[in-house]
Amino acid sequence: MSEQDTKTSAIWGGRFSEGPSAIMEEINASIGFDARLFAVDIQASIAHAKMLGAKGIISDADANSIIEGLGKVEAEIVSGNFKFSRALEDIHMNVEHRLSEIIGVAAGRLHTARSRNDQVATDLKLWVRDALDGIDGAIMGLQKVLIELAAEHAETVLPGFTHLQSAQPISLGHYLLAYVEMLGRDRSRAADCRARLNECPLGSAALAGTSFPIDREMTAAELGFDGPTANSLDSVSDRDFVMEYLSVLSITAVHLSRMAEEIVIWTSEPFGFMRLSDDFSTGSSIMPQKRNPDAAELIRGKSGRIFGALIGMLSVMKGLPLAYGKDMQEDKEPVFDATDTIELSLAAMTGMFAGATFNNKRMKDVAAKGFTTATDLADWLVKELNLPFRDAHHATGSLVKIAEEKGVGLEDLSIDDMQSINPDINKSVFDVLGLENSTKSRTSFGGTAPENVLEQCKAAKKKYL
Amino acid sequence: MSEQDTKTSAIWGGRFSEGPSAIMEEINASIGFDARLFAVDIQASIAHAKMLGAKGIISDADANSIIEGLGKVEAEIVSGNFKFSRALEDIHMNVEHRLSEIIGVAAGRLHTARSRNDQVATDLKLWVRDALDGIDGAIMGLQKVLIELAAEHAETVLPGFTHLQSAQPISLGHYLLAYVEMLGRDRSRAADCRARLNECPLGSAALAGTSFPIDREMTAAELGFDGPTANSLDSVSDRDFVMEYLSVLSITAVHLSRMAEEIVIWTSEPFGFMRLSDDFSTGSSIMPQKRNPDAAELIRGKSGRIFGALIGMLSVMKGLPLAYGKDMQEDKEPVFDATDTIELSLAAMTGMFAGATFNNKRMKDVAAKGFTTATDLADWLVKELNLPFRDAHHATGSLVKIAEEKGVGLEDLSIDDMQSINPDINKSVFDVLGLENSTKSRTSFGGTAPENVLEQCKAAKKKYL
Amino acid sequence: MSEQDTKTSAIWGGRFSEGPSAIMEEINASIGFDARLFAVDIQASIAHAKMLGAKGIISDADANSIIEGLGKVEAEIVSGNFKFSRALEDIHMNVEHRLSEIIGVAAGRLHTARSRNDQVATDLKLWVRDALDGIDGAIMGLQKVLIELAAEHAETVLPGFTHLQSAQPISLGHYLLAYVEMLGRDRSRAADCRARLNECPLGSAALAGTSFPIDREMTAAELGFDGPTANSLDSVSDRDFVMEYLSVLSITAVHLSRMAEEIVIWTSEPFGFMRLSDDFSTGSSIMPQKRNPDAAELIRGKSGRIFGALIGMLSVMKGLPLAYGKDMQEDKEPVFDATDTIELSLAAMTGMFAGATFNNKRMKDVAAKGFTTATDLADWLVKELNLPFRDAHHATGSLVKIAEEKGVGLEDLSIDDMQSINPDINKSVFDVLGLENSTKSRTSFGGTAPENVLEQCKAAKKKYL
Amino acid sequence: MSEQDTKTSAIWGGRFSEGPSAIMEEINASIGFDARLFAVDIQASIAHAKMLGAKGIISDADANSIIEGLGKVEAEIVSGNFKFSRALEDIHMNVEHRLSEIIGVAAGRLHTARSRNDQVATDLKLWVRDALDGIDGAIMGLQKVLIELAAEHAETVLPGFTHLQSAQPISLGHYLLAYVEMLGRDRSRAADCRARLNECPLGSAALAGTSFPIDREMTAAELGFDGPTANSLDSVSDRDFVMEYLSVLSITAVHLSRMAEEIVIWTSEPFGFMRLSDDFSTGSSIMPQKRNPDAAELIRGKSGRIFGALIGMLSVMKGLPLAYGKDMQEDKEPVFDATDTIELSLAAMTGMFAGATFNNKRMKDVAAKGFTTATDLADWLVKELNLPFRDAHHATGSLVKIAEEKGVGLEDLSIDDMQSINPDINKSVFDVLGLENSTKSRTSFGGTAPENVLEQCKAAKKKYL
Repeated sequence: MSEQDTKTSAIWGGRFSEGPSAIMEEINASIGFDARLFAVDIQASIAHAKMLGAKGIISDADANSIIEGLGKVEAEIVSGNFKFSRALEDIHMNVEHRLSEIIGVAAGRLHTARSRNDQVATDLKLWVRDALDGIDGAIMGLQKVLIELAAEHAETVLPGFTHLQSAQPISLGHYLLAYVEMLGRDRSRAADCRARLNECPLGSAALAGTSFPIDREMTAAELGFDGPTANSLDSVSDRDFVMEYLSVLSITAVHLSRMAEEIVIWTSEPFGFMRLSDDFSTGSSIMPQKRNPDAAELIRGKSGRIFGALIGMLSVMKGLPLAYGKDMQEDKEPVFDATDTIELSLAAMTGMFAGATFNNKRMKDVAAKGFTTATDLADWLVKELNLPFRDAHHATGSLVKIAEEKGVGLEDLSIDDMQSINPDINKSVFDVLGLENSTKSRTSFGGTAPENVLEQCKAAKKKYL
Repeated sequence: MSEQDTKTSAIWGGRFSEGPSAIMEEINASIGFDARLFAVDIQASIAHAKMLGAKGIISDADANSIIEGLGKVEAEIVSGNFKFSRALEDIHMNVEHRLSEIIGVAAGRLHTARSRNDQVATDLKLWVRDALDGIDGAIMGLQKVLIELAAEHAETVLPGFTHLQSAQPISLGHYLLAYVEMLGRDRSRAADCRARLNECPLGSAALAGTSFPIDREMTAAELGFDGPTANSLDSVSDRDFVMEYLSVLSITAVHLSRMAEEIVIWTSEPFGFMRLSDDFSTGSSIMPQKRNPDAAELIRGKSGRIFGALIGMLSVMKGLPLAYGKDMQEDKEPVFDATDTIELSLAAMTGMFAGATFNNKRMKDVAAKGFTTATDLADWLVKELNLPFRDAHHATGSLVKIAEEKGVGLEDLSIDDMQSINPDINKSVFDVLGLENSTKSRTSFGGTAPENVLEQCKAAKKKYL
Repeated sequence: MSEQDTKTSAIWGGRFSEGPSAIMEEINASIGFDARLFAVDIQASIAHAKMLGAKGIISDADANSIIEGLGKVEAEIVSGNFKFSRALEDIHMNVEHRLSEIIGVAAGRLHTARSRNDQVATDLKLWVRDALDGIDGAIMGLQKVLIELAAEHAETVLPGFTHLQSAQPISLGHYLLAYVEMLGRDRSRAADCRARLNECPLGSAALAGTSFPIDREMTAAELGFDGPTANSLDSVSDRDFVMEYLSVLSITAVHLSRMAEEIVIWTSEPFGFMRLSDDFSTGSSIMPQKRNPDAAELIRGKSGRIFGALIGMLSVMKGLPLAYGKDMQEDKEPVFDATDTIELSLAAMTGMFAGATFNNKRMKDVAAKGFTTATDLADWLVKELNLPFRDAHHATGSLVKIAEEKGVGLEDLSIDDMQSINPDINKSVFDVLGLENSTKSRTSFGGTAPENVLEQCKAAKKKYL
Repeated sequence: MSEQDTKTSAIWGGRFSEGPSAIMEEINASIGFDARLFAVDIQASIAHAKMLGAKGIISDADANSIIEGLGKVEAEIVSGNFKFSRALEDIHMNVEHRLSEIIGVAAGRLHTARSRNDQVATDLKLWVRDALDGIDGAIMGLQKVLIELAAEHAETVLPGFTHLQSAQPISLGHYLLAYVEMLGRDRSRAADCRARLNECPLGSAALAGTSFPIDREMTAAELGFDGPTANSLDSVSDRDFVMEYLSVLSITAVHLSRMAEEIVIWTSEPFGFMRLSDDFSTGSSIMPQKRNPDAAELIRGKSGRIFGALIGMLSVMKGLPLAYGKDMQEDKEPVFDATDTIELSLAAMTGMFAGATFNNKRMKDVAAKGFTTATDLADWLVKELNLPFRDAHHATGSLVKIAEEKGVGLEDLSIDDMQSINPDINKSVFDVLGLENSTKSRTSFGGTAPENVLEQCKAAKKKYL
C-alpha cells in the first residue's frame, strides 16, 4: 500500500496533519492478529446491513449492494487473494475499505448506527461462541475414546494411588471414567459460558446507543443471539466472556495436565503401565532407544500458557474505567492462542489414548504389592467382629507391620499371625485379601466394582455422547 | 495437650515409632485454618451417622449417640470452649477425638465407610456453597443501591468516556446500570458454580468406594445436594469447584476494581464528579485536608489478591496424578481468604455508593466541553442530508477542527461556519447539539435516553432484586 | 518438502515404522517459532565445531567445512532463501539438515559431543543475553528523554498526589525523575540477570556430560560466556534465566503501566495536564474530536501480557523432574513475545514523552486548590511555635476546616482566623503558604526543591547515560 | 478500647465528625497483619529520633525520652503485654500512641519530618532485608545436606532421565549437585535483591521531601542502608523490592517443587529409589500401610501459593499513579505469607533429605534396563570407527531394535548381532556398555564421572558453605 494510499485512507485523516508514526502503527494496528475475525465480522456486518435496510435507515438498494459486496470480500479473503493493510489498522477497516472499492459510496453507509466498539464486541462474541462449540465437540471425542477404553478395561486391576503411594486395587475402567467426569464438567462450564455470552452488543454504538431507529432484536436474532444486551455502556466495556472463557479453558487445561502427568509416569520404565503408539512417541538425537512421551509433556506444559492467558486478561481488565479502553485490544491474542492450544492438546490427548496399550500384568503385579487390601482387612474386622472402625484400623496397622517385617503380603500371613493381633479373626478373612475380591466388593454408588464400571460406562455414553 | 496424649491419639500411632517432628507437624497440620470448617464437618458427619444407622451399618443407639455427641462438640466450638490441638492435625480429627471423649467407643464407628478424602471434599463443597449464597446476597445488596441511585439520576448528564476522553453525553443512571449488568452476570456465574458443585462426594471413601451397603442418595439429600457424585476417584481428586469459585470471584473482583478506579478518578480534585461520605474518606497524618478514597483503592488492590488465589490454585492442581495428593490441602486458605476479601470489598463498595453524592453541575460542565455532541452532528448529516456515514464523519471532523481553532463549542459555531463545510446544512442542526437533546435522542434499546434508563431500572429491579 | 523426503530425514527414522502423525507434528514441531534462534544457533555451532577441531575430535578439514557451511546456511536464512521444514521439527535440525545438503557427510560430525538439550539451552541463553542488551539500551533512551524533560521542568509546579488526591505542590521535573529511578532499577535487574545467566551449558550433552575430550572453557570463551556451567544435569534442565528474565520484564512493565496510567489521566479533559503529539493520538470512527491516548492504554494493557508470560513459565517449570522435559519447549514463545512487547512499549513510551507538551498553567491552578500547603503550615507551627508535630497537625486540620467552610484557600484566611486556632500564630506564616515557596523549601536530599531537581538531573545523567 | 478512646485517638479526629464505620475500619486497618513490623518500626523510629536530636530539630531531652520510651514499647510487645488496637489502624500508630502514654507530649515530636509513607517503606525494606538473610541461611543449610549426600553417593548409579524415560546412567551425587547449583543461583538472586533494596526511603516524607534540615545519610547509616534513596516521590511509591523479592522466592519455590516431585516419584512403589524417614512419612486414616510423602507434596503445592503472591502483587502495582496509593497496603500479607511458606518449605526439604535413604540396588537395576548405554555405543562408533555422529546414531538405533526384539540388553547382544549392523564393530565395544564404565567415562567438565562429582563437591563446599 503506497504512502499516498495510506494517507487518504487513514480514518482520522480530516484532523491530524502528521501521519501516524511507525511506532504508533506498530503498537496500534491489530490486523496482524484480528484478521482471524474476518468471517464473523462480515457475518455481523451483513446482519447489520439487513436490519438497516429493513428499518429504512438505508435504502434497500444500498443494503443489497453492501451484502453482496461483503460476500465478495469474504470470498477474496477465503481464497487468499485479499491484501491486508496495516495502515488500515484492523479487520473492520480492512473489510470496509475493500467494500468501498467494490461497491463505492454505499459502503460508507454500513457504519451507520454502529461503532467499532460494539462491532468488535459482537465479532469476538461470535468467534468465542464458535470456539466453544468446537471445543465441546473435541472434548466429547476424548470422552468417547475414554469410555470405550473404560468398558474394555472394567476388570483390569491396577493400584489406586493417593500421594502416588499404592492405596487400594481399583479398576482401570474406573480410573478412566474419572477423567470422563472431569471432562463432563468442562463441557458443562463451556455450555454455561456460551449461554451467558449469547447476548448481542451490536447497536450499542460507541457507548451511548444511537438515535437511529434500529431494531436490535432483529440483528440479535439474525446472528443467533438470544437477544440484545441491556446496557450500551456495559456492552462495549464488557469482556467477561473472555475472562470466563479463559477460566473455563484453564480448568480444562488442568485436567489435561493431570492426564498428561499420569501418562508420563505410567510410561516410565519403573511403572511400565502404559505404552504409547509410535505416532506419539519420539526418539532422541543422542539416545535412539528412548520412547519419549513428548506430546504428554507438551500438553502438561501448555497448561501454563493458558493460565498465563487468563491471568494476563484479568490484569488487563483490572481497574479499567468505563467504557471502552484500548487496553481491551489485548483480548484477542490470548483468546486465539488459548483456543489453538486447547484444541491441539485435546486432539493429542485423544490420539494418545486411542493408540495406547496397557500392561495389565504389570499393573496387577504392582497392585499386589504395598498391602493394598489393608482397607478390606479393616472393613472385615468391622463387619465380622463388630470392631469400631478406629480399632479395626489400629489392628490392621499392626498386621501390616508384621507382614512388612516378614517381607510378605497380608494374604501370606498365617492365621496364627492374624490371631496374635486379634484372637477372633478366622480364616474367612483371607477371602477379602485378593485383588479381584477387593474391587468386586466396592459396589457402593460410584465405587470401583467392575459391574459398577460397566453401568457407569452406559450412563456416561447416554449422558455425554 | 500433653505429649502422652499426642502419642496415643496420633492416628498412625500403630506404625511409626518416632513422633512427627516439629517441622512435619508445622507443615502438615491444617487445624490452624481448617477449623473454619467445623460446622460443615459436623453437619456432614451427622448426615453420615444417620445413614449408617438407617442402613444398619451401625446400631441406632450408636448413631444417636454420635449425633448427640456431635451436637455437643459443635456447641463447645461455638461457645469458644473447645480446645483445638495441632497434634490432631485437622478439624476432622479434632472433632472425632473430642467426640470419643464425650461418647466413648461408639465414636470410633463414625468413620466407617468413609475416609478423610471424601469427608474433606464434602466439607469444602458445603462451605463454598454457603459462601456462594452469602456472596449472591451481598452482590444483590450492591445492585439495589446502584439501581436506586440510577433511578434518581436518570436525567443527570455526565460525559461518557472512551479512553478516558470525553466522548458523548450520557445519563449517570445509565452509567450505574452498566455496573448492575456486570454484577448480574457475576451472580449468574455464581449460580452456575453452585449448581455444578452440588453433587455429594461422601461415601467415595479413600478413592475406591466401599463394600459397606451405604446409601449415598440419602446422605446427599440430607445435605441438600442434588445427588451423589458418579465416580469415587474423581470425587476425592476433584477441586474444580474451588478453581471455578475463585475464577467467579476473580471476575467479580475485576468489576469491583473498575468501579473503584472510577471512584478514585471521580473523587480527584480535577474531576470532582463524586464525593464520598466521611465514613469512607480518610485523612492523612501529614496532610489533614485530604479526603482519601482508601476503601476504593483497597478494593482495587485486593483484586490482585484474588487473582493470586486463583492462579495459585491452578498451579497447585496442575499435573497432579489421581487420586488425592496432599498438595490439595492448599485449597482451603485461598478459598477462605478470597471469600473474606470479596465480602469485605462488596460491603465497602455498597457503603461507598450508598453514601456518595454527585456533583451534577461539575459533570455537566465537563460534558459540555470536548465536542461531545460531534456524533449527534454526524448523525444529523446522515439523517437530514443523506450523507454516507463515513462522509458525515469527515465533515464533522472538519467542523470540530474549526471549533477547536476558534476555542468554542460546536453549538457556538455560526451557520456560515457550518455551511463552509457543507452548504446544505441548515439551522435545525443546532437542535441536536445540546446535551439533553443528545441523551434524550438515544432511545435505541440499551441506549442512554433517560426514559430508557427508568425502564431499565424497573427491569433490573424485577430481574435482580 | 516431499513425504519421501520427510521420511528419510526424520531423525528417529531407524526405529519407528510409522511416520509422525499430523497431530504429533503439529504439537511437537517448534520451527514455527524457534526459527528466531537461527543466528545464535549457528553462532553456537561454529564455536562447537572450532573446539571439536582444535581438540582433534574432528579433523580440521571437517571443522572448516562445517564452519564455512554454517556461514552459507546463515546467509540463506538472512536473505530469505531458506526453506524451513516442519517435518525437521526445529531450527537445530533445519540448520543441520541444510548443512548436510551443502557440505555432505561432514555435517554429521557437528553433533559429536553435544545434544539438542545443551544446544537449545545455549542458544536461548545467547538470545536472551542479546535481548537484555537491547532492552538496556531502550530503557536508557527513555531515561534520556525523561532527564531532559526534568531539567526543563525543574521549576514547573504541579500537585503531587497521594490516593490521586492533591497532597503537596511539587516540581514536574522531580516527578519525571521518579520514573528515571524506577527505570534505573530495571536496568540494574537486567544487568544482574545477564551476569547470572552468563555461564555456558554447551558440552553438557543430553544430561551426563560426554566422554569426548572436549574443552568447555574454549566454547564458553568463544561465545562470550564467563565460563562453563558446573553441572551437566542442571545445565539442561535449568530455565532460571527465563523465569528471571520474565520477572525482570514484568517489573519494568509495571513501571511502564504506571507511567501509562498517568498519561491517560493527565491527558483527560478534566486534568488537562499533558497533551500528546498527533503521532501518538488517535481519533475515533464515530467521534472525530477525540484525542485518544491509545498507545498509553496499550502499554498499560500489555503489562498483563507480560505477567501472563511469567506466570505461564513458572507454571510450566513447577514440579518438573530432572533433567530435560519437553514441557520446557514452552520457554521460547513467552520469551519472544515478552521481548517484542517490552521493546515496543519502551519505544512508544519514549515517543510519547519526547513529543508531549505540558500545560503548566493548568497544573499550577490545580496545585493551588486542595490546601496543598497544609503540610507547610503544620511544619511552620512545629518550627516557629515549637508545637509537637501531632498537635501542629490537629491545629492545621482545624484551619483547613475553616478555610473549606469559607470556600477559600489557606493563604486567604485572615490572621484572626489563624489566631482563633492558635493565638501565637503570626503573619510570617503566610510566607510558607505559596506554591513556589513550598517547593523551594523542600531541600532535603531527594526532596522536590527545584535546585535539588537540577542537581539530581546531573547525577542521573552521570549515573545512567 | 472504649469508643471515647477511639474517638480521641483517631488521627484525623480534627476533621471528620462521624467515626469510621465498622466496614471502613475492617477494610482499612492493617494492625491485624502489620504488627509483625513492630521491631523494624521501632528500630527505624529510634534512628529517626537520634537524627532529629543530632540535627537539633528536636531537643536532646525529647530525643532521649523518645528512644527510651520506644525501648519500653518494644519490651511490652515482646513480652506479650502490649494491647493492640484496631481503631489505631496500624503498627505505626499503635506504637506512637503507646509511646505518648509512656512519655507524654514529646511523643508527638517523633513524627516530625517524616510521614507514614516513608516510614512504612523503610520498615518493610528492613523486614524484607532480614527475611532475605534468613532465607539465605536456610538455603545454605539445604545445600550443606545435599553436598554431604552427594559426596557419599558419588559412585552410586541411577538412571538419568529425560522425559522421565531412562536415558543414561549417572551418579546420584551428580544428581544432588544439580540441586545445589539451582539453590546457589537462588542465593545469588537473593543477594542481588538485598543489595538493590538497600537504600533508605526515610526522610522522603509524604512524597515531596521536607523543609526540616534532616540528615538522611545519618539515618540510612544507622539502619545499615548503603545510603538514602535519590527521589522522594519514587521512595514512597516504590515496591520494586517486594515484587523482586516475590519473584526471587517464586523461582526458589520452583526448584523446591522440582525436588519435591522427584521425592514423590522416587518414593513410589514402582520406583522405590528413596525412602523417607518416619518423621517425614504419614499414614492414612483408612490405609495404615501407606508411607505418604505429605511434606513433599505440600512443598510442591505451596509453590502455587508463592506464585499467587507474586502475581497478586504485580497486579496490585499495575497502573498505579504516583505517589502512594492505599492499594500498596496489600504488599505486606503476601510478603509475610511467602516468607513463612518458603522458610517452612526449606526446613522440610532439608529434613527430608537429611533423613532419607536411597536404595542403591534398585536404582542400579533400573539403570541397567532401557538401553541406557546406547549413547556410549554411539560414541564408541564415532571414536573407534570414525563414523559421523548421525550415522553412529542410526546404527545404534538399529542395534537397540534388535536387542528390544530379543528382549535383552545391549551388552547381551552377540558380536554377530553387532556386526550385522556394521561389520567393523569389534569386541572392545562391550567395554563401554557397562554402567560403571559409562559414568566413569563422562569426565568432561560438569559431567557425571564420580571423580568429577567429588571434585564438584569440594568446589561447592568452598563456594557455598
